[in-house]
Amino acid sequence: MSDTKKVLVSVVMGSDSDITVMQEAINILREFQVPCEAYLTSAHRAPERTSAFARNAAPRGVQVIIAGAGAAAHLAGVIASQTTLPVIGVPIDATPLGGLDALLATAQMPGGIPVATMAIGKGGAKNAALMAIRILALTNHDLQKQLDAYIAKMAQEVEKKQEKLDSM
Amino acid sequence: MSDTKKVLVSVVMGSDSDITVMQEAINILREFQVPCEAYLTSAHRAPERTSAFARNAAPRGVQVIIAGAGAAAHLAGVIASQTTLPVIGVPIDATPLGGLDALLATAQMPGGIPVATMAIGKGGAKNAALMAIRILALTNHDLQKQLDAYIAKMAQEVEKKQEKLDSM
Amino acid sequence: MSDTKKVLVSVVMGSDSDITVMQEAINILREFQVPCEAYLTSAHRAPERTSAFARNAAPRGVQVIIAGAGAAAHLAGVIASQTTLPVIGVPIDATPLGGLDALLATAQMPGGIPVATMAIGKGGAKNAALMAIRILALTNHDLQKQLDAYIAKMAQEVEKKQEKLDSM
Amino acid sequence: MSDTKKVLVSVVMGSDSDITVMQEAINILREFQVPCEAYLTSAHRAPERTSAFARNAAPRGVQVIIAGAGAAAHLAGVIASQTTLPVIGVPIDATPLGGLDALLATAQMPGGIPVATMAIGKGGAKNAALMAIRILALTNHDLQKQLDAYIAKMAQEVEKKQEKLDSM
Amino acid sequence: MSDTKKVLVSVVMGSDSDITVMQEAINILREFQVPCEAYLTSAHRAPERTSAFARNAAPRGVQVIIAGAGAAAHLAGVIASQTTLPVIGVPIDATPLGGLDALLATAQMPGGIPVATMAIGKGGAKNAALMAIRILALTNHDLQKQLDAYIAKMAQEVEKKQEKLDSM
Amino acid sequence: MSDTKKVLVSVVMGSDSDITVMQEAINILREFQVPCEAYLTSAHRAPERTSAFARNAAPRGVQVIIAGAGAAAHLAGVIASQTTLPVIGVPIDATPLGGLDALLATAQMPGGIPVATMAIGKGGAKNAALMAIRILALTNHDLQKQLDAYIAKMAQEVEKKQEKLDSM
Amino acid sequence: MSDTKKVLVSVVMGSDSDITVMQEAINILREFQVPCEAYLTSAHRAPERTSAFARNAAPRGVQVIIAGAGAAAHLAGVIASQTTLPVIGVPIDATPLGGLDALLATAQMPGGIPVATMAIGKGGAKNAALMAIRILALTNHDLQKQLDAYIAKMAQEVEKKQEKLDSM
Amino acid sequence: MSDTKKVLVSVVMGSDSDITVMQEAINILREFQVPCEAYLTSAHRAPERTSAFARNAAPRGVQVIIAGAGAAAHLAGVIASQTTLPVIGVPIDATPLGGLDALLATAQMPGGIPVATMAIGKGGAKNAALMAIRILALTNHDLQKQLDAYIAKMAQEVEKKQEKLDSM
Repeated sequence: MSDTKKVLVSVVMGSDSDITVMQEAINILREFQVPCEAYLTSAHRAPERTSAFARNAAPRGVQVIIAGAGAAAHLAGVIASQTTLPVIGVPIDATPLGGLDALLATAQMPGGIPVATMAIGKGGAKNAALMAIRILALTNHDLQKQLDAYIAKMAQEVEKKQEKLDSM
Repeated sequence: MSDTKKVLVSVVMGSDSDITVMQEAINILREFQVPCEAYLTSAHRAPERTSAFARNAAPRGVQVIIAGAGAAAHLAGVIASQTTLPVIGVPIDATPLGGLDALLATAQMPGGIPVATMAIGKGGAKNAALMAIRILALTNHDLQKQLDAYIAKMAQEVEKKQEKLDSM
Repeated sequence: MSDTKKVLVSVVMGSDSDITVMQEAINILREFQVPCEAYLTSAHRAPERTSAFARNAAPRGVQVIIAGAGAAAHLAGVIASQTTLPVIGVPIDATPLGGLDALLATAQMPGGIPVATMAIGKGGAKNAALMAIRILALTNHDLQKQLDAYIAKMAQEVEKKQEKLDSM
Repeated sequence: MSDTKKVLVSVVMGSDSDITVMQEAINILREFQVPCEAYLTSAHRAPERTSAFARNAAPRGVQVIIAGAGAAAHLAGVIASQTTLPVIGVPIDATPLGGLDALLATAQMPGGIPVATMAIGKGGAKNAALMAIRILALTNHDLQKQLDAYIAKMAQEVEKKQEKLDSM
Repeated sequence: MSDTKKVLVSVVMGSDSDITVMQEAINILREFQVPCEAYLTSAHRAPERTSAFARNAAPRGVQVIIAGAGAAAHLAGVIASQTTLPVIGVPIDATPLGGLDALLATAQMPGGIPVATMAIGKGGAKNAALMAIRILALTNHDLQKQLDAYIAKMAQEVEKKQEKLDSM
Repeated sequence: MSDTKKVLVSVVMGSDSDITVMQEAINILREFQVPCEAYLTSAHRAPERTSAFARNAAPRGVQVIIAGAGAAAHLAGVIASQTTLPVIGVPIDATPLGGLDALLATAQMPGGIPVATMAIGKGGAKNAALMAIRILALTNHDLQKQLDAYIAKMAQEVEKKQEKLDSM
Repeated sequence: MSDTKKVLVSVVMGSDSDITVMQEAINILREFQVPCEAYLTSAHRAPERTSAFARNAAPRGVQVIIAGAGAAAHLAGVIASQTTLPVIGVPIDATPLGGLDALLATAQMPGGIPVATMAIGKGGAKNAALMAIRILALTNHDLQKQLDAYIAKMAQEVEKKQEKLDSM
Repeated sequence: MSDTKKVLVSVVMGSDSDITVMQEAINILREFQVPCEAYLTSAHRAPERTSAFARNAAPRGVQVIIAGAGAAAHLAGVIASQTTLPVIGVPIDATPLGGLDALLATAQMPGGIPVATMAIGKGGAKNAALMAIRILALTNHDLQKQLDAYIAKMAQEVEKKQEKLDSM
């Protein structure tokens, strides 16, 4: 899934079942043609792999890390503690508590190590990619133009849906 | 509070009583010598001022916006819908619900408009500044060095506190 | 869906998928023959459309606005900040948190800008219409009579259901 | 506390200790010179008094009822079931659960009987009065002008507070 | 459903859809041959019927009232405020909040008017009947013997299920 | 604290610090001259004492047991499993979770063993005593008269407080 | 289900429907060849059986007890109060509250009697077995080797899943 | 604070402010004369120190690790992922959410890496030490005797407190 170009955004997930959620992030990144990869690692089941990933991300040229995890979702925080890249966390609804556990475990980071927390689930994964793009667009004029177009298109789609609603 | 240099990070808050929390963000930004400003506006009580702020931020050279608000904390989301800059939200504990209302209103943004949500309160405000710095450091070598030093110092402080604990 | 007569109540929703919930409001308004419209706009994806809607509502003769939204449900609050018409908010269960996020984001408005919050989901949408009718009935004798009849009928239906229960 | 003029808004509360919260509503109503009264009744401890109040409100000329209560806050719902006037509910933080119990008991009304729920506590009481005024202003030009001025003043105050913040 | 003998326990519910839950209470009462009835009334949609029911219960010879309701579950509290009979409340899971709203609205009664709250849903309905039987058994030797036998049988069933488990 | 007359209601608590809450129950029972006792036992720290208490209560002539406990409040449930007397549970706010833990651990009893759960804290303790009195009054004409008077007095007090409010 | 060898870990559950969850614990124990049993008992419906079980566990040679229960999950606590063996609690999602009730009732034990609480549901049951094995491995070299291999295998599986993800 | 004898239980905490809570664990361990140490490390601010601690614990002879942390409490989980020793987690109430965040982040560990979660705060810290002692007592006859005496003393203290209550 990693593009041949240098990966700019790494989409990390704690379990292969998380791919259905995190695919939303990858879809957006591909739509914006941002080179990205899907990386599987677990803060708990593969701590050394996670450390190695976090420490090698910046040297590899990665600019932003998106990490999705459910339950006691430690993945984004553990990565953020071992890199100075911006880390975006996506809480995943993986337990009977509806993702409230993952949201709190991702967002309530103590002072010193920030994690940019998104909404629970697919909408959060999509927004994680858009947040990564907002960051990259600060110094990438082409991405900025795509972002402006994306925003404009969202507004237009609302108007189109109004027409459908009116015809119902 | 705005520095004479061009403001890179704008710290916005919904009420003047939020300054005790948001000062934590400003302190970190000043420690890293990032030009910043404290801006007061309310999504609800001053919607036009908020729109004008959001639309003028990028043209003014602002790179990252930090927005703190309590209760039905709409400020970060409303700003994020009117700029393509990265917006970081700080939920503030301003009601008897302990900030859970502000956390959910900030984090649970629908797909399309991302807000990078931090922890509730002062720790979240501090981390909002550190997240802004992580973003700026992607293209600012000096900030990156400061960030590396900050991370190293945090680890050292843990060791120093161990000595104090041992001597108790 | 807008009637040929001047619209008195505008039923706004943040996403076209919200129509299944908000239809409950429209059904009640039609039952009471209150001219109404279904309007689609998003606080986040279409902020200008939302502002325009809010600012034009009173001039267009709208008397009450009903706004339904899920997740970080900002729609009702954003509209209420740009009109002085009464705004009724319907939290929609659109995330794994069961609508608690939408309820808090709708109800916990800061002092200054009120939103009349209803229950989560279809019951809330139905009640939003009935609240709009209670407001309009203050100066509309015909609506008041319909409302009295509606209330009486609800009580009678309870008695009819008792008969069914007894025959089981 | 009832004005000599016919009462337009009745501010009801379930316990005399609720006056510290509900005074916020009364203050706003007086600021707008809306004739109002403070009425004490309990859905549970004084059900007949509550019924009599609810049934006599419209005949007495009351236009809007504001009801504040804590815990299993039934007051607004019980009143709303015995009048067709618009009823606004203010959940009060009166138990260790921070008002979440009162919020749910006020907002989660079943379909048929609406209660316009405000935020928990003083901000909610203030907004209840402003919601009543929005309703009355639909047919009262003078109130509408006051409301427009109030909204404008709120926006101006944000700007004044910015000046204070800048001088700090 | 009311037996020809004088009704001792009245099983009240707020909506006919609640019968699937409240049937559990009726089943237990019938198993113990306690004369009972299923009564439908709504605190909100039929307040006069509810008052009449509550006030007539004791004169009719009812000894214990069981009231099941969902959402802002006011039914048990409203009845308890108009009778001095023991009232047992069963919170019903009728909204996306999983019955937490009904539990809080039933249990968090203010001092003065008690409601004996059971668990959410069918288990709670079953226990409501068993609580009513515990109350009646205080002065009914036959019911006491049945209750002792019921308790003994529950313990034996655990042992039987162990055998099944062992044979798996 | 046990009266010389045979104890009818036993007020049990899990910790001596719970007496400040449970005293509310004792006060009401004394006001109604119901012979009662304060009994200290812990489901966890003194399981044999708890079993002995539960098994001896009915033989000693106790009619109703009130059990208050905080945190993972098992006391009422453990007692209810070892007696067939009606057991009333009072959740106590003894942890940072505001009593939500105690409320759920008391109310969410599985089918078979009922606990009559009251509100969290002092109001719940007061209501536990009033529930016990409602049960005893079923066969005690004197208590019934006291209860009727108590109810009437509560309603009158609301009216007196109105006068105070009016004179403010 | 009890092995012919002396049982080292007893897996207790409050209801036979809990077996689908608790089987996860048994599977792990069997994979590690730890002699175990499935034991059914209920803190509430079979208190004497539960006491006998708890008191006989250590004499029978049991080293660790795993107890799974839902709702007001008292089972682990009640057992822990009657043995000094380590007791591990598994909250089961058995009510509409998603297991939050069981989690709080299991974890919030008062000082004096510890219960080692795991996550809600199947993952928690699996981890309960792994926690029991960590305890037994302290003095069992063979189990320690198996545990090391298990940990290594988990890390390797993450790498294998990466390959699958890459090939998608 | 580390004893001269080989440390058997290491009490780890994420911040020096946590010592007021974790001291409860140390007090119990000292009362039972279990060699212990207080160790300060942060999963986020000192990840390498945390890894080194976790990996060296077993070689140093540590048998049980107790880890206390607040907010997005990752400390116990991060340690458990890098040792096979039993790890006991103590959630600390360090944010406005009353420790619910720390409880969920500690307890909701995914399958594979168990953390034995205790109650929030001081009671949890005390119980963490008692759980460690239950584990060590499996193979330490002297500790087992102390534990038996401790349990007996707790039961006796309940009886003594009864006397005090009676004399009030």
